[in-house]
Amino acid sequence: MKSPPIFENKIPARYRDWTLISVAHQAGGLNDIRAILGNDVAIKAYREEKLPFPDGTMIARLAWSYVPSEENNKVFGREQSFVAGPPTNVQFMVKDSRKYAATGGWGFAQFTDGKPVNEAVPKACFSCHEPAKARDFVFTHYAP
Amino acid sequence: MKSPPIFENKIPARYRDWTLISVAHQAGGLNDIRAILGNDVAIKAYREEKLPFPDGTMIARLAWSYVPSEENNKVFGREQSFVAGPPTNVQFMVKDSRKYAATGGWGFAQFTDGKPVNEAVPKACFSCHEPAKARDFVFTHYAP
Repeated sequence: MKSPPIFENKIPARYRDWTLISVAHQAGGLNDIRAILGNDVAIKAYREEKLPFPDGTMIARLAWSYVPSEENNKVFGREQSFVAGPPTNVQFMVKDSRKYAATGGWGFAQFTDGKPVNEAVPKACFSCHEPAKARDFVFTHYAP
Repeated sequence: MKSPPIFENKIPARYRDWTLISVAHQAGGLNDIRAILGNDVAIKAYREEKLPFPDGTMIARLAWSYVPSEENNKVFGREQSFVAGPPTNVQFMVKDSRKYAATGGWGFAQFTDGKPVNEAVPKACFSCHEPAKARDFVFTHYAP
């Protein structure tokens, strides 16, 4: 049996210009600081608090190494500032309720240095997102 | 002597739609997680690595309380996820080399709940930004 499609192997155009949804820090093994961006369809749905997200929604999760900023700490006079270091990878959720019917209408993708990762990775995305089913499988809340 | 102008007491329109420059976490007393956004003029200058920033540059620093996410931690199976809680305040830097000549060409502002704070606060901004003079008084680096 052919497995369901996960995602085009192409990074959505101009995703770096999308609008900010929120920010987060994952400690532990990931140890990154991240920003979640959305295209216009995503942002409109977020601001109108409309669920499920409509087809055409695209959400990007950018992440960078979590690193202390020596130059900021000098100004603050103490070790308190952590900033974005080198990028780690970029992940996407793309809503297409027909194409990705098997995974809640969402296609998942991950790119490292602009290259798509092994298909096994995005396949694992959906199972982790399932607990957020009541919010259409999206964890991130909009930060005003 | 009349003190130099600091900033209009008006929040720049549509700043929440500006493009992401980078993200950071300030621990210590601030204990916030923040996003730095820029208007089109700012983003163009950042991407072209052009200094000083041209007149018309506007940079926003949004900050939210730094809070653990119980729902994310459940999925990760450990205490590792920190997200944006309620907003704390929003700060701006606006470049107008004539109007703000006394402070490196930058006007500073801070708003809490949409209201400008006491003038003493933005007056203190410039002295803290002076160590970043070589980068036109802007600390934040662009995160690709």
